[in-house]
Amino acid sequence: MYNYKNSQIKIFNSLTGNKELFIPFFYGQIGIYVCGPTVYKPLHIGNCRTFIFFDILFRYFKYLGFKVKYIRNITDVGHLDLEEDKILKTARLEQIGPMEVVQKYSLEAHKSLKLFNTLSPNIEPTASGHLIDQIELIKSLILMDMAYVSNGSVYFNFNNFNKNFNLKVGFLDHNFSYQNYKSHTNYKSHTNYKSHTNYKSHTNYKSHTNYKSHTNYKCDEKKFVNDFVLWKKALHNNVLSWDSPWGKGFPGWHLECTAMSMKYLGNIFDIHGGGIDLKSPHHDCEIVQSTALNKNYSVKYWIHTNFINMNGKKMSKSNNNFLLPINIIHGKTIYSKKKIDPMVIKFFLLKTHYRKVIDFSFFAIKEAEKNFDKIFEAYVILKNLTSCQTTSTFNVKKWIKHCFASINDDFNIPLLIKNLFKGISLIKQIKKGKEILSNKDILLFKKYIKIFLFKILGLKKKKEVKNIKVEKILSTLIEIRCLARNKKYWSISDKIRDKLINYGFLIKDSKI
Amino acid sequence: MYNYKNSQIKIFNSLTGNKELFIPFFYGQIGIYVCGPTVYKPLHIGNCRTFIFFDILFRYFKYLGFKVKYIRNITDVGHLDLEEDKILKTARLEQIGPMEVVQKYSLEAHKSLKLFNTLSPNIEPTASGHLIDQIELIKSLILMDMAYVSNGSVYFNFNNFNKNFNLKVGFLDHNFSYQNYKSHTNYKSHTNYKSHTNYKSHTNYKSHTNYKSHTNYKCDEKKFVNDFVLWKKALHNNVLSWDSPWGKGFPGWHLECTAMSMKYLGNIFDIHGGGIDLKSPHHDCEIVQSTALNKNYSVKYWIHTNFINMNGKKMSKSNNNFLLPINIIHGKTIYSKKKIDPMVIKFFLLKTHYRKVIDFSFFAIKEAEKNFDKIFEAYVILKNLTSCQTTSTFNVKKWIKHCFASINDDFNIPLLIKNLFKGISLIKQIKKGKEILSNKDILLFKKYIKIFLFKILGLKKKKEVKNIKVEKILSTLIEIRCLARNKKYWSISDKIRDKLINYGFLIKDSKI
Repeated sequence: MYNYKNSQIKIFNSLTGNKELFIPFFYGQIGIYVCGPTVYKPLHIGNCRTFIFFDILFRYFKYLGFKVKYIRNITDVGHLDLEEDKILKTARLEQIGPMEVVQKYSLEAHKSLKLFNTLSPNIEPTASGHLIDQIELIKSLILMDMAYVSNGSVYFNFNNFNKNFNLKVGFLDHNFSYQNYKSHTNYKSHTNYKSHTNYKSHTNYKSHTNYKSHTNYKCDEKKFVNDFVLWKKALHNNVLSWDSPWGKGFPGWHLECTAMSMKYLGNIFDIHGGGIDLKSPHHDCEIVQSTALNKNYSVKYWIHTNFINMNGKKMSKSNNNFLLPINIIHGKTIYSKKKIDPMVIKFFLLKTHYRKVIDFSFFAIKEAEKNFDKIFEAYVILKNLTSCQTTSTFNVKKWIKHCFASINDDFNIPLLIKNLFKGISLIKQIKKGKEILSNKDILLFKKYIKIFLFKILGLKKKKEVKNIKVEKILSTLIEIRCLARNKKYWSISDKIRDKLINYGFLIKDSKI
Repeated sequence: MYNYKNSQIKIFNSLTGNKELFIPFFYGQIGIYVCGPTVYKPLHIGNCRTFIFFDILFRYFKYLGFKVKYIRNITDVGHLDLEEDKILKTARLEQIGPMEVVQKYSLEAHKSLKLFNTLSPNIEPTASGHLIDQIELIKSLILMDMAYVSNGSVYFNFNNFNKNFNLKVGFLDHNFSYQNYKSHTNYKSHTNYKSHTNYKSHTNYKSHTNYKSHTNYKCDEKKFVNDFVLWKKALHNNVLSWDSPWGKGFPGWHLECTAMSMKYLGNIFDIHGGGIDLKSPHHDCEIVQSTALNKNYSVKYWIHTNFINMNGKKMSKSNNNFLLPINIIHGKTIYSKKKIDPMVIKFFLLKTHYRKVIDFSFFAIKEAEKNFDKIFEAYVILKNLTSCQTTSTFNVKKWIKHCFASINDDFNIPLLIKNLFKGISLIKQIKKGKEILSNKDILLFKKYIKIFLFKILGLKKKKEVKNIKVEKILSTLIEIRCLARNKKYWSISDKIRDKLINYGFLIKDSKI
């Protein structure tokens, strides 16, 4: 009934700032690259939001019949926290080896994402697993004069890039400094640059912080402030540094995603996604690198998920206001002691469009739980629904079309959920006899409710909280039977015996 | 009561062929490297045996208080099936990308091992993630004249190695051809070698097979028959080949384990383990490589687990007589349709000493299940056991000592299980009143039964097969109550009402 051949999917492209018709490069095939976690800490619920959203994208395209290749990397080197690699920092704090940090938090990330019933990507490449690829790209950029070696490190030459390429649409984030940079013409030298007033506040800021060595270090090596590191000289010897043509070092964070996406998806691919905070500088840098290498854009659609607000501030590891899924689930946060099913959290996250900020609150989760329960209660009714009618008072096909239209309109999952609720109230009306569906329509309706809930959204029934154990109730039943026998209520005791036999228990009675 | 300071652990060392006292290189620390799976197919039960055994080693050392670093690699390149990389072969057969094969079967391996409640190793490095390390090692070997470049590939020079090193204990497998090779003196040239009669049958064999190109290829490049590949020229362009000083290629299988073990455990470490089939040539080659690089042995204890026989033949992917854990568990093999709990399979595997061949049969698994059930039935009794006695008729401390002595004697887990059964019969005797334990001894006994079963062996209770649902029995209870009410058996109906309230259900009755 529905396949990709007649679907008109629109996606908001961060590159152009417009909602665009989605047309894959190759007929019937889609390549997706999503920036995965830096595995130095557990995923917080904001990170999970991103991966849950792209999982739905992946599920939807697969459902439509596309051959989808979904790559989500694991960053295990090069992502710096000030001048220190994030993995090395955790290794220092937790007193374990850097690769033990990687193992620990990669497994934790998998565990968290499994809770939300996300599918495994086709490949999860690691940055440390693609050094030669990264080194080869750097060599090419140096040959093109798009990168230069400086004191054992290699930097992307942003100035030379802009001499050669005219980025038509500008960068992803229009407030980003590269944009400012482009509006000026006389920044030929480092000295000139510094004297320019526009950047003064930035300079002042830096001189007032305690990161002086960081600033000095950068100023010494980089030709221009917007140049970014492709290969960084290792200051200390550790397992996260490798030999290269420029000496011992490690790759820059931005480069790894370019190397891995191009390796597995080709020079040109359809979708690159990630959290909104990666727009700048991470994705901007990816764009200039890959454009330099390809002489053209390599990604057609850039998709960014928004963040979660917690107490009025963006939830992040650096703001230290983040919540871990496992703590929410087990009721172990300072805000709530109530256990919450992962599917309820997922449903809560899906109720806001991926481009909007979610305001996290346990009150909102409670509301989401009510709605979630309504859906699954209705689903149970629907499962047992049959009809001997031949006509319907409700247009199921039109409803299905609206559901798909919601998804196709820039993955408007909140709108899809609204449409699903129209289905829910239909079920109630049918039960009340106020609406009628033909048997054919009931089958169709059941089929698509299942597709939307399970296949596309990847929801599942809540896990039952098993407070009552089977054994306990069984023993109650046996106890009651003894009581009945003592009182010679044979009808009762016989009934219980029959039921118990039914459950596989043979009762041997002693004579009373 | 028990710690590593006074434990005398003996381990059979494949390198010397003797049971030796285990003394780690560094006080209180143990480094273990185990050859992990080549992720081109699911793990069969024979593979699982190996990883379950080393998990117990890992668990035991951790329990004793050692700081253990357990590395188990993932082979994702370089392991050849004739001349074709195993990953590439699966990619060809399953029509997916090579790294998609890696992702799929890495996740499957994790899933299988989780079924058997094994712990995650500290690091799971991949071969493709350690190319620079491997290239550096090859460069060093070439500089030492222990390796030579030939037609874009690099080979280990076994002849030169033996000129410089006198391996005192010989190789792991004493029937291995290297050993034969050493007993002859005039194999200086390739031609001489071929004319030698000892190898004639081998040569004949090759010329009769359809792998002629394979034979030719090898003869052209290698100087000596025992030389093995360190870097192999890529014949085709694919994601499993990388630039190197010797052109595009990929690393040899033997080299990767040397690179990864030395990177994470240092030049010298305590234990290297793997399945017995890896002794030759894989571990022999590892030994000569690392000995050349270190000028000394790098591994102190080599430990090998034996295989599983299936229908009188070694269970292996190549013999095509392997069983997958998931199929045994779900009763989906040609031999049995009965579902079997993973813990029963694990218990069955542990009943044979790791150095002995296991004869797999479903009859033997059935027997193992009986014993497994006996242990856990006794454990339930033990949990509720208390005593007000002050003396004991059974020496619990001696029993604990015997249990540890079993493990310490080359990980004799079958003997440990025998000792656990002595504990089981003790529990029965206590219940019958034929043996007496003081309360202090009961607590001690409980503590160590738990340590042996759960902490060291990593066993768990069987998963209950929930055929009966709570809701079903609850509704029976309600049904019985209605019956009782109708018959005005108030004592029964009130009792049921009270029980239901206990379970959290409020009953509202209409008047009769």
